[in-house]
Amino acid sequence: MSLVVEILSTGDELLTGQVVDTNSTWLMDRLWDLGVMVRRKTLVGDDRADLRAAIESCAARADLVIMSGGMGPTEDDLTSACVAEVLGVPLELHPPSLEAIRERFRALGRPMTANNEKQALFPRGAEVLPNRFGTAPGFAARVGRALLVCLPGVPAEFRGLCDEAVLPRVAALLDGRQAARVVKLLGVGESAADHRMRPLMDAPEHRGVRFGFRAHFPEVHVKWAIAGPDAEAHAAALEVEVRRIFGDAVWGAGKEELPALVVAALAARGARVALAESCTGGLVAALLTGVPGASAVLDLGVVAYADRVKAALLGVDERLLAAHGAVSAPVARAMAEGARRLGGATFGLGVTGIAGPGGGTPEKPVGTVHLALAGPGGGAERALQLRGDRERIRRASAFEALDLLRLALR
Amino acid sequence: MSLVVEILSTGDELLTGQVVDTNSTWLMDRLWDLGVMVRRKTLVGDDRADLRAAIESCAARADLVIMSGGMGPTEDDLTSACVAEVLGVPLELHPPSLEAIRERFRALGRPMTANNEKQALFPRGAEVLPNRFGTAPGFAARVGRALLVCLPGVPAEFRGLCDEAVLPRVAALLDGRQAARVVKLLGVGESAADHRMRPLMDAPEHRGVRFGFRAHFPEVHVKWAIAGPDAEAHAAALEVEVRRIFGDAVWGAGKEELPALVVAALAARGARVALAESCTGGLVAALLTGVPGASAVLDLGVVAYADRVKAALLGVDERLLAAHGAVSAPVARAMAEGARRLGGATFGLGVTGIAGPGGGTPEKPVGTVHLALAGPGGGAERALQLRGDRERIRRASAFEALDLLRLALR
Repeated sequence: MSLVVEILSTGDELLTGQVVDTNSTWLMDRLWDLGVMVRRKTLVGDDRADLRAAIESCAARADLVIMSGGMGPTEDDLTSACVAEVLGVPLELHPPSLEAIRERFRALGRPMTANNEKQALFPRGAEVLPNRFGTAPGFAARVGRALLVCLPGVPAEFRGLCDEAVLPRVAALLDGRQAARVVKLLGVGESAADHRMRPLMDAPEHRGVRFGFRAHFPEVHVKWAIAGPDAEAHAAALEVEVRRIFGDAVWGAGKEELPALVVAALAARGARVALAESCTGGLVAALLTGVPGASAVLDLGVVAYADRVKAALLGVDERLLAAHGAVSAPVARAMAEGARRLGGATFGLGVTGIAGPGGGTPEKPVGTVHLALAGPGGGAERALQLRGDRERIRRASAFEALDLLRLALR
Repeated sequence: MSLVVEILSTGDELLTGQVVDTNSTWLMDRLWDLGVMVRRKTLVGDDRADLRAAIESCAARADLVIMSGGMGPTEDDLTSACVAEVLGVPLELHPPSLEAIRERFRALGRPMTANNEKQALFPRGAEVLPNRFGTAPGFAARVGRALLVCLPGVPAEFRGLCDEAVLPRVAALLDGRQAARVVKLLGVGESAADHRMRPLMDAPEHRGVRFGFRAHFPEVHVKWAIAGPDAEAHAAALEVEVRRIFGDAVWGAGKEELPALVVAALAARGARVALAESCTGGLVAALLTGVPGASAVLDLGVVAYADRVKAALLGVDERLLAAHGAVSAPVARAMAEGARRLGGATFGLGVTGIAGPGGGTPEKPVGTVHLALAGPGGGAERALQLRGDRERIRRASAFEALDLLRLALR
């Protein structure tokens, strides 16, 4: 059983790069959680002929077409009219919707202009989907063998109506016989992940499983979707195998995010961390403090770009700097210890490296990074040789630093 | 003259909501700068039949189809094979590309696995587009009346190849009689910008100019594209008008980025800045140090989440904290002065606020932020009342802080 779902979005603003069509990304993610991979997504402008052609071709291929946009009061909102044309039926006024729109304007204390009545016009025979998140109701209609669901493009309204009226129907159609998983890796490239997964993916017992990889730099995500009566058990068994393949490189799964996971692990232990960052320049602090509640686990971060700051503020011995250079394991260690002491924290985390584009030498090329963690049970270190531009090196260093902390907190 | 351009993206990961197809948004934006609105965008998965059908239908409608993804070494990278099937030609090895791929692996010191050879296979007759940004070259081929350009989906490679090999061709097709401008604002919302621009946009002498707004949070960009023989002069004259409308809210134009602009302004004056961040938690530091050469203008950043750190490290008077609270103008000022003193810097920048979701009170709701700058010519301050979630409040605060520094450096 395979449900073919397509997404169709309309709106000139989506085709000029001015507005990102976040609705479809959001919906794809929700559908994936149900084990459904959207088959195709199409984006067209507010043009009657383009829109009609797109509706026809989507409906010819799919079981379910979810459409967003073109439901507002203005002249370039064409969805209802185009669907009616495709179906060869007239538009009809839906009095309860008109009343709801009137009521909404009354509640806002604003006059309702005549063009808003347009939002109560639907193709004859369509099922109206009341919209308690905004003005324009959605509607659903059969177009050939496909069910076409049309929703307003305003994100809060689109998402609200999807959650209320669309996703439950999809789940019912699927009958619970779908499952999907995502496992998240750090320190393994996409092609290496593919290579190590190959025997599993090629095994006859996993035929029919849809495997995929996603590079979400610096992370790589491994995912799989399964249909069938034993989908859930099969997906869970695969997760055990995948985790065995990648070991410690697996830091999380599903919707987990590394910074939030580290903040939660620190909070669970009542521990706090202090940071001393050189090449990441505040990125580790910014990632951690992006998590609500981070104030419970972090109270100090020092961006120590200059050796002078490393020595004066963090107490890094100047002889260490002279003997090994600022980018070295001993200096990373001293930075971690200095941050821990200065912040009075459970853990101290030090990051020093060469992010480029300048500053590299033959012995220490751009991408050389040293991480160190100082903690109650001793220390941990990691030396990296990263590739890429300044942004990638900084980002990879910051995530590797968080990962070092994650492993210490297990 | 109207050039019909379509975008076709492929990749299962784009259809599961896990990866946002930022390439197409970026490209739409670039094309818009040339005065071209993309006609349709299609997203399909890594499925041979779907991909072939999509290539055929795009090529039947458009003059130019720009395709991204499916160019990698793995089995589910199908672009070359599908284009060859659509054209009814075989795949052929392109020896210079194979050599370039080999050379790339040699330079990285990694063994080249056999599947990488696949990236040197192209449909017979295609024009190969060398890729100096990564491994997989792109290619261009005529499909019916359309020119189909296929590029790798990795953003840096896609964008690099677009800039080098695609956009110049589009510009040439357009005959150079196009001009476009972007002016970048901070502290003005999109609808307020639209409102203030209205008289200019409605003026008869600017009929035919294509105006647009782009919310690139926390910035708003105002842009316009003009076609015709006097396009360049007209676009330049409009820039003068737009700058007059928005005054100091205009911080830059074109491809300028605020952090790089601030780093350059500091460097030009031989000045350095030291940071004391509370609610932004390292974000200001991360933005500045993301700019190559930032080490010349920043040597200290302190993330002072706890009052204890504000007092002990930055020397913020505990009586100030008790009297006004940590989120107050006097504390922001003391943080700025403390950072300046501790870092021995020309300027000190202090940020304190409530990013939420918790921590708000009726007097100081979530989104209350105080910024202060201490410098040789005295200080400057800014109080903000921001809306949105934690991420938006932090991001807006960080950019407003950089803007405060920008104005002081003029």
